[in-house]
Amino acid sequence: MTHSYASGRLNLPFTGICTFAKAPHQPDWSALDCDAAILGAPFDAGTQWRAGARFGPRAVREASTLFSFGHAGAYDHEDDVTYLGPETRLLDMGDADIIHTDTEGSHRNIEAGVRAALAAKALPVVIGGDHSVNIPCLRAFDTEGPIHVLQIDAHLDFVDERHGVRHGHGNPMRRAAEHPYVTGLTQLGIRNVSSTAREGYEDARRMGSDILSVRQTRALTPEAIAARIPAGARVYVTLDIDAFCPSIAPGTGTPSHGGFLYYEVLEILQAVARRHEVVGIDLVEVAPDYDPTGSTAILAAQVLMNLLGFVFHASSLGG
Amino acid sequence: MTHSYASGRLNLPFTGICTFAKAPHQPDWSALDCDAAILGAPFDAGTQWRAGARFGPRAVREASTLFSFGHAGAYDHEDDVTYLGPETRLLDMGDADIIHTDTEGSHRNIEAGVRAALAAKALPVVIGGDHSVNIPCLRAFDTEGPIHVLQIDAHLDFVDERHGVRHGHGNPMRRAAEHPYVTGLTQLGIRNVSSTAREGYEDARRMGSDILSVRQTRALTPEAIAARIPAGARVYVTLDIDAFCPSIAPGTGTPSHGGFLYYEVLEILQAVARRHEVVGIDLVEVAPDYDPTGSTAILAAQVLMNLLGFVFHASSLGG
Amino acid sequence: MTHSYASGRLNLPFTGICTFAKAPHQPDWSALDCDAAILGAPFDAGTQWRAGARFGPRAVREASTLFSFGHAGAYDHEDDVTYLGPETRLLDMGDADIIHTDTEGSHRNIEAGVRAALAAKALPVVIGGDHSVNIPCLRAFDTEGPIHVLQIDAHLDFVDERHGVRHGHGNPMRRAAEHPYVTGLTQLGIRNVSSTAREGYEDARRMGSDILSVRQTRALTPEAIAARIPAGARVYVTLDIDAFCPSIAPGTGTPSHGGFLYYEVLEILQAVARRHEVVGIDLVEVAPDYDPTGSTAILAAQVLMNLLGFVFHASSLGG
Amino acid sequence: MTHSYASGRLNLPFTGICTFAKAPHQPDWSALDCDAAILGAPFDAGTQWRAGARFGPRAVREASTLFSFGHAGAYDHEDDVTYLGPETRLLDMGDADIIHTDTEGSHRNIEAGVRAALAAKALPVVIGGDHSVNIPCLRAFDTEGPIHVLQIDAHLDFVDERHGVRHGHGNPMRRAAEHPYVTGLTQLGIRNVSSTAREGYEDARRMGSDILSVRQTRALTPEAIAARIPAGARVYVTLDIDAFCPSIAPGTGTPSHGGFLYYEVLEILQAVARRHEVVGIDLVEVAPDYDPTGSTAILAAQVLMNLLGFVFHASSLGG
Amino acid sequence: MTHSYASGRLNLPFTGICTFAKAPHQPDWSALDCDAAILGAPFDAGTQWRAGARFGPRAVREASTLFSFGHAGAYDHEDDVTYLGPETRLLDMGDADIIHTDTEGSHRNIEAGVRAALAAKALPVVIGGDHSVNIPCLRAFDTEGPIHVLQIDAHLDFVDERHGVRHGHGNPMRRAAEHPYVTGLTQLGIRNVSSTAREGYEDARRMGSDILSVRQTRALTPEAIAARIPAGARVYVTLDIDAFCPSIAPGTGTPSHGGFLYYEVLEILQAVARRHEVVGIDLVEVAPDYDPTGSTAILAAQVLMNLLGFVFHASSLGG
Amino acid sequence: MTHSYASGRLNLPFTGICTFAKAPHQPDWSALDCDAAILGAPFDAGTQWRAGARFGPRAVREASTLFSFGHAGAYDHEDDVTYLGPETRLLDMGDADIIHTDTEGSHRNIEAGVRAALAAKALPVVIGGDHSVNIPCLRAFDTEGPIHVLQIDAHLDFVDERHGVRHGHGNPMRRAAEHPYVTGLTQLGIRNVSSTAREGYEDARRMGSDILSVRQTRALTPEAIAARIPAGARVYVTLDIDAFCPSIAPGTGTPSHGGFLYYEVLEILQAVARRHEVVGIDLVEVAPDYDPTGSTAILAAQVLMNLLGFVFHASSLGG
Repeated sequence: MTHSYASGRLNLPFTGICTFAKAPHQPDWSALDCDAAILGAPFDAGTQWRAGARFGPRAVREASTLFSFGHAGAYDHEDDVTYLGPETRLLDMGDADIIHTDTEGSHRNIEAGVRAALAAKALPVVIGGDHSVNIPCLRAFDTEGPIHVLQIDAHLDFVDERHGVRHGHGNPMRRAAEHPYVTGLTQLGIRNVSSTAREGYEDARRMGSDILSVRQTRALTPEAIAARIPAGARVYVTLDIDAFCPSIAPGTGTPSHGGFLYYEVLEILQAVARRHEVVGIDLVEVAPDYDPTGSTAILAAQVLMNLLGFVFHASSLGG
Repeated sequence: MTHSYASGRLNLPFTGICTFAKAPHQPDWSALDCDAAILGAPFDAGTQWRAGARFGPRAVREASTLFSFGHAGAYDHEDDVTYLGPETRLLDMGDADIIHTDTEGSHRNIEAGVRAALAAKALPVVIGGDHSVNIPCLRAFDTEGPIHVLQIDAHLDFVDERHGVRHGHGNPMRRAAEHPYVTGLTQLGIRNVSSTAREGYEDARRMGSDILSVRQTRALTPEAIAARIPAGARVYVTLDIDAFCPSIAPGTGTPSHGGFLYYEVLEILQAVARRHEVVGIDLVEVAPDYDPTGSTAILAAQVLMNLLGFVFHASSLGG
Repeated sequence: MTHSYASGRLNLPFTGICTFAKAPHQPDWSALDCDAAILGAPFDAGTQWRAGARFGPRAVREASTLFSFGHAGAYDHEDDVTYLGPETRLLDMGDADIIHTDTEGSHRNIEAGVRAALAAKALPVVIGGDHSVNIPCLRAFDTEGPIHVLQIDAHLDFVDERHGVRHGHGNPMRRAAEHPYVTGLTQLGIRNVSSTAREGYEDARRMGSDILSVRQTRALTPEAIAARIPAGARVYVTLDIDAFCPSIAPGTGTPSHGGFLYYEVLEILQAVARRHEVVGIDLVEVAPDYDPTGSTAILAAQVLMNLLGFVFHASSLGG
Repeated sequence: MTHSYASGRLNLPFTGICTFAKAPHQPDWSALDCDAAILGAPFDAGTQWRAGARFGPRAVREASTLFSFGHAGAYDHEDDVTYLGPETRLLDMGDADIIHTDTEGSHRNIEAGVRAALAAKALPVVIGGDHSVNIPCLRAFDTEGPIHVLQIDAHLDFVDERHGVRHGHGNPMRRAAEHPYVTGLTQLGIRNVSSTAREGYEDARRMGSDILSVRQTRALTPEAIAARIPAGARVYVTLDIDAFCPSIAPGTGTPSHGGFLYYEVLEILQAVARRHEVVGIDLVEVAPDYDPTGSTAILAAQVLMNLLGFVFHASSLGG
Repeated sequence: MTHSYASGRLNLPFTGICTFAKAPHQPDWSALDCDAAILGAPFDAGTQWRAGARFGPRAVREASTLFSFGHAGAYDHEDDVTYLGPETRLLDMGDADIIHTDTEGSHRNIEAGVRAALAAKALPVVIGGDHSVNIPCLRAFDTEGPIHVLQIDAHLDFVDERHGVRHGHGNPMRRAAEHPYVTGLTQLGIRNVSSTAREGYEDARRMGSDILSVRQTRALTPEAIAARIPAGARVYVTLDIDAFCPSIAPGTGTPSHGGFLYYEVLEILQAVARRHEVVGIDLVEVAPDYDPTGSTAILAAQVLMNLLGFVFHASSLGG
Repeated sequence: MTHSYASGRLNLPFTGICTFAKAPHQPDWSALDCDAAILGAPFDAGTQWRAGARFGPRAVREASTLFSFGHAGAYDHEDDVTYLGPETRLLDMGDADIIHTDTEGSHRNIEAGVRAALAAKALPVVIGGDHSVNIPCLRAFDTEGPIHVLQIDAHLDFVDERHGVRHGHGNPMRRAAEHPYVTGLTQLGIRNVSSTAREGYEDARRMGSDILSVRQTRALTPEAIAARIPAGARVYVTLDIDAFCPSIAPGTGTPSHGGFLYYEVLEILQAVARRHEVVGIDLVEVAPDYDPTGSTAILAAQVLMNLLGFVFHASSLGG
């Protein structure tokens, strides 16, 4: 991100077209010359309670402008680092095309977007949409493996099949675990009753998952959490906004009380970014119309921009 | 509906379990002994803008309790008639089972519910859900024809196929027109840009539709509108809440300004019920979470209860 | 109302303490030296659906400041009249004391406020609260009769007694009709199912009510409506905000579609004020928290200020 | 609760009639054959600030469906227990009849419901309504004593009488303490200014209350809290949703900052259920229309279902 | 606008970056090769009641995507015309830079944008912001005159100066009338009390304004209204969303009951576009956060797209 | 505050005119005979994201009535102290006059109010408005120094000048630090990206600021925080509501995740009040319309009333 003061523009957050972080829009996916490519995946037909995550990409983009004051990067006084300075090149790919009534077709279009970002050697950053969009995201990594999946979520999402459904928002981690190029899963924040029954937990553990509830995660330091991921693993981060406490993330389909607070997740992400290469990111389940205060979308934008800052700061330090 | 004062219960609207009009719940669809059977069809994956109609059945049921003061029927001082007295037997079937990510499976379950009502010789009354639920509703009439479809809607919903989509909420009237047992369509309230392009209008007219905008409808009396439906036709009414002005129906997926006001639709329905046999009803596209005032669901309940009153009052007068 | 520009204050609507129309607050009810005295009656335990009218007085007061631009009166270019100029003296009495769980005690306190206004020869203007607050208001007129009651409302409110309830918001017009000093009622806007059953309508007509629905009212001119009130009658106006269409008044307990639009009521009130002495006013059932847009409270304030303008303009012309 | 997969129904949370946890509805209170009987008590005329708790029962029932995925019970991976499996029989009694303007009559009807549940040897579980509904609940225990009351609440609710009010939502714990069969009270979460003045605290302590603020409670372990209740005491739990932090429970009449977070209350309830017999439950003051996100009702449902799970799991282990 | 089906994209309304009507974004104002150039003017420090119009441009852009179904233009079956087909070239200029606390600086930046559009021979279309943004818009026409201003608004906005304020949202029409190149004003919809007092009306009429209230406008046909504008006049249209009834436009700073309904304004605009050259447009005072239903922004987008359609259809027919 | 029970008034929170804490309104600023004078400063043109803080004073006043149960003071059972008893005399000054479009004029009027309070030897307590209102507040202390400023806020607000802006809501702490009578600043809660860039932090530290993030503050006790303020310093407290976590304070212009929880701030304020003389207070950035639950305004009122209680309790103990 470059700053705009030199160009004579104050560029307050409430002005301007809403791309993610006011990054340039590049609708030509064969021309993604950037470090990170942001893709909207506004698909929400995989939900089992409230829909509305189709407006997640728009809401997160709009909220991201709150953090775009025209500065050259974001100064963090605690870390004494300016993140996302002009050396980090972001592009907004716009949204994958969604076909109503057609889950498979919509998923294919999302997969194509992630493949385009990967082909351009850019970090793919996908904004959902419901958690089913993780399924096409991970499919696109078939030639990028091996990867380890770090899921931060209230729900295990490990249902195999029920009434024929295999690609809803209760299934993605099961689908992930089935990929030969996914070497393992770390699943943080899992709590309460959900669409995954007891056998799902047993399957997950058998297939290599490390499952921690919010309380179990809290009992450990961020560094200890990061260390549970195998050393050297290249990590794909999938962040369901309902991992957070409904107090700060009510705008989501299936809120679950007892979730993470802001710094708990942020510090885990920072620790992971320091220790591991992050090769892909999705942030899902922001359903903005259920939060008239806007806090949920602001949270999503704030976490995503910080995570990107951590990732590129870590990579700038070597590696 | 029987009144509750004799039984010692004031039964204020805000008390009690929310079935439609506080009618008995009959989950056993092989035992539908009633005049009208209410079925929820909470499917909204057919939408092209805002989702949320999956909560339509719950919201309309809840709003319907506002009109259930424990009286034996609803007295209308303008008509000097007590509608929906104890002689009219309503049952609430509950909801069709919905399978997320699976449009065809969900539609099949809706179709099964309508077939069950028809098999019991009850008037099927379906609360959507998006307008795509009309597709399985009309499928269930394959042995009940011939029927004429009266659509009250902002949108023509006459798209044939686009990107493979044939069963979304932009397609139902095209699908209806294709049925051999649908002898014609009357489409009222159609206005503004929508998913149907010029060729859709041409197709509709060619396939026998009578299309009137809000302004064209207003220029005629309710009786004249009713008279445009062929004499003797048995009428299926499909009512999209977005036919109404967003001023009274903002809680819907694709609001369209310039819509009908309350009495305009009510008087058409009353005129149609007087002149024609009504053989099936669906009311769709109530997305309650977009209307924090609750007006939209109250409108839907109020229209539906009045329509039922008109239908059974007309049938009680002979026919 | 005096204007504030001379005193060096712009006094924009969003500034200042919220009394009605920014009139002076006079908590000492023995010192009401004014033409009209505004009393809040924040009681809502008489409701049968949604409560919340207890916040009606605060909301209407706050909305009234929108019409207080610091001018000396309100200029109406259609009438070419400046209403509510400095010659009209308003005072805000604050609220009657409400005792939760105690309907009779709360009503007594409201009655005391109206009696205080009447004792001071001021026009009592009561802001509810639910429509049951009309009961104590009219009790206070026992030495002020004879009066005619003009009700503008969706509901007849003519229930005699049910389960022992005689002072809820479904009863006030029945109670009014029982007073020997109430010579008749004109009930406008009555429509749809409500807590009053057929026998209530019959009782009302027998006891002297003139009942008109919205459609029946619309078929007449405002002057014709005003002329239905006996010549020379001194009129008490009770205005239930749900008389209006939910499109402009969703913030109320029991919204009823098909209601009046703004000018329909305004012109009736203007015609009545021209032809009759208005001796008391209540405006009830504003439940502001059901209308996040604020339109309902703005409507209530706008109608009330216009009505006061009409009343004092008419009295200034003589009569 | 039995699961529905065998019956061929996916039964997603957003489908179906809203009884509590989709339990069967049993309106015949003489036929309550179950382990726990859920009763709605939609009375809110006892409130001193915002009303709206009359819609608490509906909202909590609707939210409870989010936790009803068609599974046979709710698997908790932290406890490795499936709670509320098919062996636990729940019934929803519907609502007590409420009589507007009549506090005593409404309370009598609530009392009758609790007596019916107790007569059937079912655990009575009452969903308010404001906290005054606890008064009739505890009256029904006159032949069930001795009991100890565990209150979790922001407010002490220990006002004796003020302006004649003895049965409002500021009085229930005083009324409880007066019963000879209530052997003591434990009052947790009490904080901030409220309707109870200093003398109320003094009275409470004199009459046997153990009062702890949120901070005082936090300084102890859940087990230590549970141990403050006399060993062997049979415990009635009254849970006011405003005990929780407004961050997760804004939908209530009198929010009070500084409240409990989710696991703090959950762990206390789990500890109490392990150590004591729970003989009755009420959960009050959910006013859903003040929380457009739905989080408050979801919290109430989540806490109530967990508490029921703890109670019946404990009883299944012996005792 | 070109359609996207050929390019293999369904392009549903809820997908994609939100420029106006999904037109291309052209931030380089020296390269505006188009027929109409859309400029956001997110300034709202000129308001006297509720602010929030700064988010008007974003909301109107987002709502405009609802009318962008990927078709080549918008087919209107009543007119049998496809408006805004591929021959009409729209560009979105983004927003003028706003400087908080600095009215004059912000206005200068808006003026620069309008000058850029005019220099490119494009029709300038400005989305406010509050009505004060009309002041810099009209300043930019100093070399484009003579022009006639058609204002559609609830308020006259004709305050000269008060407490030094000359460039707030109550002043623009006075400022307009002062320009030598503004030959006259037609002011429609003016009603109710506002910041303009009696002397403002007198000044306006003296300076050449034709003022009509809503009721006065309704008494005339659209064609008669259009004919009140001098023949041959080149017309600048300034549309304050509060001209409309709060029932369809509650999301605005100073709502005023009794406003226009949808077709009333649309038909006037269509008549004006047929009879006059439209040389500039602004649409102001959409404050989206006061309308949780989204209806207001949808109305603004719908009116603006129709007006553009009328203008370019008229110009395509000759002239 | 004196209690009202003796006077025969229950005075429930929802009744009565909304001054702060139901204190008397004194619009004559030359007659401020009180201990603390409350002034509204409804100016929000200094904001860089969402406006709406102009309604902060009204909302905080209304919320403050929730804590006004008619008692003589507020009993705190944890401290065993009755705060704000009848010996503490509060007056509500109403609001400073605001001039739209004119930042300097509005600020002057705020400054005049604070000077009036100081002249009367009353503690000035200003409710914003955006944080720019702190600029005129501190100007009024030019003859009251030396003072130390304690800022509790998410943002450093230390921008010197940008595009000519020096008096927006990103500048006040810079302006404060420039005053010779401001001896130092303690800035707590500072986090995340904001309008202040790295050089602003460097300037602040150079000019004497002690900056602590939320996490850094949390690592210390309240007493240790208070001890960082120089002994004997007279303290001006400026509290930006966005210092708090958006979970409890979403109703603000620029929410920032990771903020303080309730007791964290309360205990710091209590510790500071015990150790230092508090000479002025402002509480800013409550934008109530972004929080439909009302929690933010309740928080502001609750914090402000507690802080006043701490200040006057401390002063009553000597010093």
